[in-house]
Amino acid sequence: MQQIFVQQRLTPNQDLVLEGTSFRHLIKVLRLHVNDYFWIVDKQQQTFQAQITTINSDNFQVHLQTLHRSNCELPVTSIIACSLSKKDKLDWITQKATELGAQQIVFFRSRYSIMKWAPTIVPKKLDHLQQIALSAAQQSHRLQVPQVKYYATLAELIKSQNADYQLVAYEQMAQEQKKGALADIFQQLQAGQSLMCLFGPEGGFAVEEIRQLRQNKYKLCGLGPRILRAETAPLYFLSALSYQTELEKELTN
Amino acid sequence: MQQIFVQQRLTPNQDLVLEGTSFRHLIKVLRLHVNDYFWIVDKQQQTFQAQITTINSDNFQVHLQTLHRSNCELPVTSIIACSLSKKDKLDWITQKATELGAQQIVFFRSRYSIMKWAPTIVPKKLDHLQQIALSAAQQSHRLQVPQVKYYATLAELIKSQNADYQLVAYEQMAQEQKKGALADIFQQLQAGQSLMCLFGPEGGFAVEEIRQLRQNKYKLCGLGPRILRAETAPLYFLSALSYQTELEKELTN
Repeated sequence: MQQIFVQQRLTPNQDLVLEGTSFRHLIKVLRLHVNDYFWIVDKQQQTFQAQITTINSDNFQVHLQTLHRSNCELPVTSIIACSLSKKDKLDWITQKATELGAQQIVFFRSRYSIMKWAPTIVPKKLDHLQQIALSAAQQSHRLQVPQVKYYATLAELIKSQNADYQLVAYEQMAQEQKKGALADIFQQLQAGQSLMCLFGPEGGFAVEEIRQLRQNKYKLCGLGPRILRAETAPLYFLSALSYQTELEKELTN
Repeated sequence: MQQIFVQQRLTPNQDLVLEGTSFRHLIKVLRLHVNDYFWIVDKQQQTFQAQITTINSDNFQVHLQTLHRSNCELPVTSIIACSLSKKDKLDWITQKATELGAQQIVFFRSRYSIMKWAPTIVPKKLDHLQQIALSAAQQSHRLQVPQVKYYATLAELIKSQNADYQLVAYEQMAQEQKKGALADIFQQLQAGQSLMCLFGPEGGFAVEEIRQLRQNKYKLCGLGPRILRAETAPLYFLSALSYQTELEKELTN
């Protein structure tokens, strides 16, 4: 079932005219017809079933009915923050993290980042990744589109991003026999809390960066005994979080 | 730390001559020098630290010492079986599943598979994917290289692949309020058991295929409330399995 997001509040039994991107995507590309259905999620995360009633040359009209469906968002606000890797990896991380339920996807530059973004290209890079998040959120039937952000330094990220639980994925933790740190934290989570985890670049974090993060109350955690690539680690984290909070003991408000 | 696998049994304090692929990879490409170290995992999954003692024109010699390290393999034999998707996705699944600990990576053709492999190209396709698994196993410091296999039909897979637990990832399970099925199974696992999960193609499994699998004692399970792409689902499964058996309550023999 196709799904789009709209930046307005909708009401049941409303008739709505759609144009622009939605028209091009649903009518021109996907070739939906009169009487076809798709889903619309509004700005309040309400889902409506939309039936196409009229198609014009550059817009189309739909009739809305409320759709009742189970919540498909993680019960905790999850933020993944990844040090810059090569472009393709950023696209993958953004797409997969959206499928796996992240609410914010943050990229930042750390000492050993593979790449850097000149300030003038940051808006264009973020636009590109935000578009990927939007498409993935539509395909995954998310109720919200993750926000993609960027910080040029670790210090700025530490200063600007806060969460109830602030973690750093640190490979050495797996080796130091402190395997259970992540599970301990996940099991303490309560619905509505927020959780952020930082993931280093291919070269890992510098010792001073780990010290700086610990001084700012970040906890180190391991992600199992195998070495995970920079783009795999955040997906492990989000999958484990979903497993703990949605499959094992369902966290509910 | 670089790691290679060798198809022989090694002993501590042994001197070993390496040539061919290992020589090209470690000496020509990575440019290791005399006195440099790397790891070798032998056919019995023993790890040795190898120090280069001599480099010749087409081979090199190392001195071995036993290396003690924690087990980094999942405590259960995990088999992921994925219906054929586009080539890039197969490469990605193979690489990531290896990082995440799978022991067998099976591809098969089902009703709605995106692609098919003519019998004449199957060996070449498998060689390519096996090479990806080898590289990923080396980089992840695995103790074994996952075996990549292919079945041309679902019936052949059902007949030839067995495991203590046989599952099918089925999206509708998430919607049918039977969210906890995967967790129930994971929590019953005992060290040394085997677990296989089938993942459908982009179009999902046909109703008759689900019926056929159920008749053959496969259990249906959901992977959370969001729709996951065909290449993301097996990674969710392996991450959740690692979280349950390696981070939460460590399964040990």
